[in-house]
Amino acid sequence: MFNPSNMQRYAANLNAVRDASRRIAPHAHRTPVLTCATLDALAGRQLFFKCENFQKVGAFKFRGACNAVLRLSDETAARGVVTHSSGNHAQALALAATLRNIQAHIVMPTSAMPVKRRAVEGYGATVYPCEPTLAAREEMAAQVIEQTGAVLIPPYDHPDIIAGQGTVGLELMDEVPDLDAIIAPVGGGGLLSGVCIAAKALNPSIRIFAAEPAGADDAARSMAAGRLMPQTNPNTIADGLLTSLGEHTWPIIRDHVERIITVPDEKIVAAMRLIWERMKIIIEPSSAVAVAMVLGDDFKSLDSISRVGVVLSGGNVDLSQLPW
Amino acid sequence: MFNPSNMQRYAANLNAVRDASRRIAPHAHRTPVLTCATLDALAGRQLFFKCENFQKVGAFKFRGACNAVLRLSDETAARGVVTHSSGNHAQALALAATLRNIQAHIVMPTSAMPVKRRAVEGYGATVYPCEPTLAAREEMAAQVIEQTGAVLIPPYDHPDIIAGQGTVGLELMDEVPDLDAIIAPVGGGGLLSGVCIAAKALNPSIRIFAAEPAGADDAARSMAAGRLMPQTNPNTIADGLLTSLGEHTWPIIRDHVERIITVPDEKIVAAMRLIWERMKIIIEPSSAVAVAMVLGDDFKSLDSISRVGVVLSGGNVDLSQLPW
Repeated sequence: MFNPSNMQRYAANLNAVRDASRRIAPHAHRTPVLTCATLDALAGRQLFFKCENFQKVGAFKFRGACNAVLRLSDETAARGVVTHSSGNHAQALALAATLRNIQAHIVMPTSAMPVKRRAVEGYGATVYPCEPTLAAREEMAAQVIEQTGAVLIPPYDHPDIIAGQGTVGLELMDEVPDLDAIIAPVGGGGLLSGVCIAAKALNPSIRIFAAEPAGADDAARSMAAGRLMPQTNPNTIADGLLTSLGEHTWPIIRDHVERIITVPDEKIVAAMRLIWERMKIIIEPSSAVAVAMVLGDDFKSLDSISRVGVVLSGGNVDLSQLPW
Repeated sequence: MFNPSNMQRYAANLNAVRDASRRIAPHAHRTPVLTCATLDALAGRQLFFKCENFQKVGAFKFRGACNAVLRLSDETAARGVVTHSSGNHAQALALAATLRNIQAHIVMPTSAMPVKRRAVEGYGATVYPCEPTLAAREEMAAQVIEQTGAVLIPPYDHPDIIAGQGTVGLELMDEVPDLDAIIAPVGGGGLLSGVCIAAKALNPSIRIFAAEPAGADDAARSMAAGRLMPQTNPNTIADGLLTSLGEHTWPIIRDHVERIITVPDEKIVAAMRLIWERMKIIIEPSSAVAVAMVLGDDFKSLDSISRVGVVLSGGNVDLSQLPW
């Protein structure tokens, strides 16, 4: 049950999000909120798309990484930062490290797209290739930490990351104050938990929904079970949403999200193409999950929701391998 | 030589553009102007992208069609409107006709993309398929006019169309008043001539450049010859720029455009992909011509140009057949 007075027991609160907002303002884009009459007609509601595909490095991930890196003491920062990621967090941390002129060490599975590896290296980060398993990634990251003394900046389950991603919610609420609901995709839950913290504190009656791929539904299963369930053998085109919720993100999501609705991959691909064709903007499959949800029957059947904020989380796609 | 006092002899002037702006304001989008640090670095200049890919029907064409349809007398409008087009003007006129609840008759070559035909029919227009030759298109249009009494709204060589497209320049100058130059792509010249009329009247020292595909270079040849040269056997991926300049657009372009720079198709495709990847917006090849030009050596070698407006004319692409 939501209770504002409980907020201090979570990993982040509205003040932390506001601090993050001031901290990242000189570096991150305040992304636009776009609307589309065609999508409104299809959804039967007014939709407000928060375009994090236009964020630096092409995804909201830069907000959290930027906040976490700027929060480090000079002494800690000087030792560098490390993470393991095949995707947007790797680029985000590499770029954030350049803001403090410190070294970023990125452990990347050999399965990562070459274009992403080149982008990370382009920001001056050192890439450590490893086998594409979580165990191999964590082992390699531990080695890097031992050798360099660099500090680990995890992709989502960290108070500074959650507060940074929460700025998405802060800006959306500022731009469209009278929303009835917000939808965000959920993978590890950094974005979703940050949005919860910001939006619910500003308007306790706002309704927060999460969209999750049916092929990576640990968050939906966790909500159903009332306890944190790990991701097992995820299989979805939404490659940004393969991870499990974490110990910091789960309690926030558990207490603030009304419902997690899953969507199959074919609806994700169709929603992605629809946004490209009608809105002329490029979103990645992980963003399209939220669009597919808002267009689906489960969400459409809910009453008393007229104005919906939809977070388009990123736009990093391999244009040589489109899913249609 | 440019001389403001000559403007009255052109098909449109600043007042006509301002009237068009007021007329279409309730119906057309005021499209955003986007910037991108990566593109600025590549161009060596500050670029301001006027995003007509976000316009209704996905291209600037709606502005001119809307202005022309709204200018018709009730009596004339009641007889309906007709045009022949395989592309964006067809959709633009079909949508504009719905604003006055009148019939649109669209002659389309059988080679037109099925998705475009469906879009036109979706707006309630009647489609007349014909052989994909200019002669067949004009003959079919003449038949429709004879049978229905509908009035022909040509795609570019018409004062109301030019004035309507000029609102792109009006908005760009309003948003970024201190531009040194504007670049627009040129096909039939409706957009380019409209931008000239608006921008040069507001700031006689602004420099206007046009970007043209090397495979459809009638405008560049006309400028070199000092007289209107027809398009012959155009062959370019920029399918919106296959047409020749017209008798209304040519004098405006001749007297106001500093230089027309041609770009080969491979640079157009590369520029299109670059914009998709870095700006996360979808532009069509005809828009990418202007991007390719601003990134090319010919334009880069020009002095005293710091702030450049670049018109992204449209974003209608067949996502099943991308050119890479």
